Amino acid sequence: MFQSFEVTARPEQGPPRLADLRLAMVKDALDGFLVPRADAHQGEYVAPHDDRLAWLTGFTGSAGFCAALQEVAGVFIDGRYRTQVKAQVAAEFTPVPWPEVGLGEWLKENLPKGGVVGFDPWLHTTAQMQKLEAELAGSGITLRRNTNLVDQIWTDQPAPPSAPAKVHPLEFAGERHEDKRARLSADLRKAGHKAAVITLPDSICWLLNLRGADIPRNPVAQGFAILHDTGAVDLFMQDAKLGDVRDHLGAGVTTFEPGQFLSRLGKLAGPVRCEALSLPVIVGDTLGDKIVWGDDPCALPKARKNDAEIKGSEQAHLRDGAALCELLAWLDAQPAGTVRETEVVRALETERRKDNALRDISFETIAGTGPNGAIMHYRVTEDTDTVLQDGHLLVLDSGGQYLDGTTDITRTVAIGTPPEEACAAFTRVLQGLIAMSRLRWPARLAGRDIEAIGRMPLWLAGQDFDHGLGHGVGAYLSVHEGPQRLSKLSTVPLEAGMVLSIEPGYYREGAFGIRLENLAVVQVASAMAGGDDHRKMFDWRCLSFAPIDRRLIVTAMLDDAARDWLNDYHAQVAQKIGSRLSASAKLWLDTATAPI
Amino acid sequence: MFQSFEVTARPEQGPPRLADLRLAMVKDALDGFLVPRADAHQGEYVAPHDDRLAWLTGFTGSAGFCAALQEVAGVFIDGRYRTQVKAQVAAEFTPVPWPEVGLGEWLKENLPKGGVVGFDPWLHTTAQMQKLEAELAGSGITLRRNTNLVDQIWTDQPAPPSAPAKVHPLEFAGERHEDKRARLSADLRKAGHKAAVITLPDSICWLLNLRGADIPRNPVAQGFAILHDTGAVDLFMQDAKLGDVRDHLGAGVTTFEPGQFLSRLGKLAGPVRCEALSLPVIVGDTLGDKIVWGDDPCALPKARKNDAEIKGSEQAHLRDGAALCELLAWLDAQPAGTVRETEVVRALETERRKDNALRDISFETIAGTGPNGAIMHYRVTEDTDTVLQDGHLLVLDSGGQYLDGTTDITRTVAIGTPPEEACAAFTRVLQGLIAMSRLRWPARLAGRDIEAIGRMPLWLAGQDFDHGLGHGVGAYLSVHEGPQRLSKLSTVPLEAGMVLSIEPGYYREGAFGIRLENLAVVQVASAMAGGDDHRKMFDWRCLSFAPIDRRLIVTAMLDDAARDWLNDYHAQVAQKIGSRLSASAKLWLDTATAPI
Repeated sequence: MFQSFEVTARPEQGPPRLADLRLAMVKDALDGFLVPRADAHQGEYVAPHDDRLAWLTGFTGSAGFCAALQEVAGVFIDGRYRTQVKAQVAAEFTPVPWPEVGLGEWLKENLPKGGVVGFDPWLHTTAQMQKLEAELAGSGITLRRNTNLVDQIWTDQPAPPSAPAKVHPLEFAGERHEDKRARLSADLRKAGHKAAVITLPDSICWLLNLRGADIPRNPVAQGFAILHDTGAVDLFMQDAKLGDVRDHLGAGVTTFEPGQFLSRLGKLAGPVRCEALSLPVIVGDTLGDKIVWGDDPCALPKARKNDAEIKGSEQAHLRDGAALCELLAWLDAQPAGTVRETEVVRALETERRKDNALRDISFETIAGTGPNGAIMHYRVTEDTDTVLQDGHLLVLDSGGQYLDGTTDITRTVAIGTPPEEACAAFTRVLQGLIAMSRLRWPARLAGRDIEAIGRMPLWLAGQDFDHGLGHGVGAYLSVHEGPQRLSKLSTVPLEAGMVLSIEPGYYREGAFGIRLENLAVVQVASAMAGGDDHRKMFDWRCLSFAPIDRRLIVTAMLDDAARDWLNDYHAQVAQKIGSRLSASAKLWLDTATAPI
Repeated sequence: MFQSFEVTARPEQGPPRLADLRLAMVKDALDGFLVPRADAHQGEYVAPHDDRLAWLTGFTGSAGFCAALQEVAGVFIDGRYRTQVKAQVAAEFTPVPWPEVGLGEWLKENLPKGGVVGFDPWLHTTAQMQKLEAELAGSGITLRRNTNLVDQIWTDQPAPPSAPAKVHPLEFAGERHEDKRARLSADLRKAGHKAAVITLPDSICWLLNLRGADIPRNPVAQGFAILHDTGAVDLFMQDAKLGDVRDHLGAGVTTFEPGQFLSRLGKLAGPVRCEALSLPVIVGDTLGDKIVWGDDPCALPKARKNDAEIKGSEQAHLRDGAALCELLAWLDAQPAGTVRETEVVRALETERRKDNALRDISFETIAGTGPNGAIMHYRVTEDTDTVLQDGHLLVLDSGGQYLDGTTDITRTVAIGTPPEEACAAFTRVLQGLIAMSRLRWPARLAGRDIEAIGRMPLWLAGQDFDHGLGHGVGAYLSVHEGPQRLSKLSTVPLEAGMVLSIEPGYYREGAFGIRLENLAVVQVASAMAGGDDHRKMFDWRCLSFAPIDRRLIVTAMLDDAARDWLNDYHAQVAQKIGSRLSASAKLWLDTATAPI
């Protein structure tokens, strides 16, 4: 099993560690120290070596940070984690609602003039620290780069990750790294930049057609890279990881130990392109005025999937859809009140593992039944494991990492006979999924410009949900990949080849949750009779195939176009997935995909 | 008649004037001179005194500028005016597609290093000139503040406007200017700003409850103002305009001649808030480093209409809707092939004038029949006047300025029997109007976040239109009022009291045009059974009432909810407008608003 249900951190472990940290602060003449949930690569997951926030505080959410002072230790968490943090941290820690309360503001309230706050310059980005410095201007509080005090006191800290890097085959990558380097360096030359610094592991892995296993859930090898305007790359990665990939990298890629990164940076001629949102402060310090701020040069090319990546994703999704259908068929055969959430997670991972293609799950499966379904980022543990009861909805959000693609799919399933209002809300969520899936839209629009389409059915009923409608997805890379999103936070224009999730939901606290999620790829829409010939438009090609629970649909609420879409979608599910299923699951699928 | 159909500028007038300008440039040692369509107040309309661009070039569009050099004179116009400019300017002028071609780029191509370009620092904003200077950096081309050379050569230039300012009654303004000044100056004090400079006439008129007649279509008195953090205002306006308003202004408002503006600015203590998008360069020069950039303090308070303004707008719209219904009833009684566009415009203005409430039209009425309807900003002239023929659609976009409110409404009317594809497109435009009108949406969203709702029906047919879905509207002020818009250009959150147009359209070049437009006010939506109690949501209250041409609706394309909306809307039109109509128009209205 990739997934564990262990309660990994206990509140009572935090206070003695906090006490040790405070002693270390005194030794270094610091009044505070910042502990982010981040490594030097700013990814969504961190290796056990870098899981300092959880080790110190007990809080295991995917975002947040601790500001430890002598008298108070704030744990800053966003809206998703307000409940969770209370259960996970001891009373010695003070949860702080973030970003409603900013760090600068909080430090000014809790520290006197002259206070000195230390931070590890590898773990914070230039953009973060510039913002914090601006907030503290005139306060007399200063920020000081410091060795990492958590690493000093964490005596049994796991070693940094060192899994071997692997070649990502051209069959799946679709473009040689020599060609990627040539095309990206041409952009650098055009912009007059001598080099670009890349610190995001998924960018480096995409650029060099590498994959790895340094971090759970994200198949990346960690490292740093410098892309020169000649197309040459300096790769900073532990030598021990590189045995299998040296020949693949070839002469255009020179490898160095990570410890040489800063000294090589010091020798670069400028201008050097860096991304403020991800660049470690220490890298910014080293480059100084050689920096020009810009985007990671891999971000958009990586987001626009090529034909091989799209074809791979299609294959991965058929395999993954079949596994999910086996699970759903099995689940439907179990009487209400007999299955626990953890059993669902185990059974689903078992189905995904059956044909040995699964490299990892793409995130911790969310299986929340009844009220647990209303917790958007619910991860079941031994402490919370709940039986699926008659009248529940089960939210099942999961995905797999396969060599040919990354999947992410959510279905919401009826357990017994759910209440009418849940069915009505489910139908609205479905209407949103259908409206967005059917959409055709003009070029140059961003996620922000079209997200409303997927929310309108809920809005008209006075309802909404508090997460984005969708996120970008990598190709056997991060399941959350930018820069494109279906969200009011994203003004990056959507382009052909971008893969996004479409995942409307609805959450009634203490009662039930609903989410439906398909992945889809943006494609140039074919011309329509009567349409504007001169206008370039996009539409979606759906990648995810698994039935949508017909028992939860209030058929009368769907108009003809929505009903036609659903019946057509289900016919495709039957056609694409049916032949991959066991006999019993195939029988189940026939019913589950019958027209409404 | 407010509207004229005169062809106000002739192409042949341009070349001798351009020759004079070039002589003046030589005298001042300039290689170029910039002639914007703008006065010092950056409004949409300019007084005849300030209509330099039309005088010099012949081009009468509402946006654009001329860059006159010795060898070439570029007339920069946006996509709306590509056709019009060709008909209006002589061959001595070169139309330049803008913003596709930037002014900086064009100057660099057409001027040698060392070239000097003059501009009138009253007519260009700080933001414009900072952008242009950045574009010219390193080119060796310099910009020089200069006296206005067009004013030098324009021997019969009309005098600056000097219409008397009037008090805008409290009954319509809804808040005393003393209270407005107190509340806005409290914001200044909170921000630590000593004063704010206001150069937009509609902001000044809103703040001081004044109106005027300096500019066609916009009932403003031109001037400048300084709002001090004490609530006191320095008003710079010709003494001759102020006779009727001195008592109203009272002790808190000190008046000065406009010529004293710069010297008073020089005496201000900073920080002084200024808006870069509207501040004349010369004001920026005078204030220097006392400036802090921010929004015009009146912008948002003016946009959020109070109860009196909304009540006034409702009254104005009923009066205006009745006038439009009289016109539409009359028009329907005329056989196809017998009426010209100018007659429609005349007849409509005559209806609006009947009860003497009309102060002005709120813009030049657009009456475009057949192919003319596809020209989005069509203004009929004696040269283009066209007969309404069988099979045409007539786009009729018009509005009135009344003491109690500003209106703006568009209807598209069948002349005889239009083709099926026009009816299908009309129905899609109607679907967009209905979808947006029915919308309910969560607080904190901007126009950009919801605009797609009004476009989706067209998108699904491969169609779209190239203007925003809607704009803000003033209260007996500018018919185009910011900062809110239903457009991907606007990220200003919508708030209760904001009035916007909802105006989807469709344009088939050379064939037909369609536009439907209602004004509506944003209001806090009432709670719904089953809705999220904790979630603040908004919806629209419609202000505009006139029938939507049932003959153009393909009924089968409307779903039940849309049909219900339309029938309910038409029932409201009948109920609100019917009693205001002549007997014959009332009969017509009964048919025009019958349920479908």
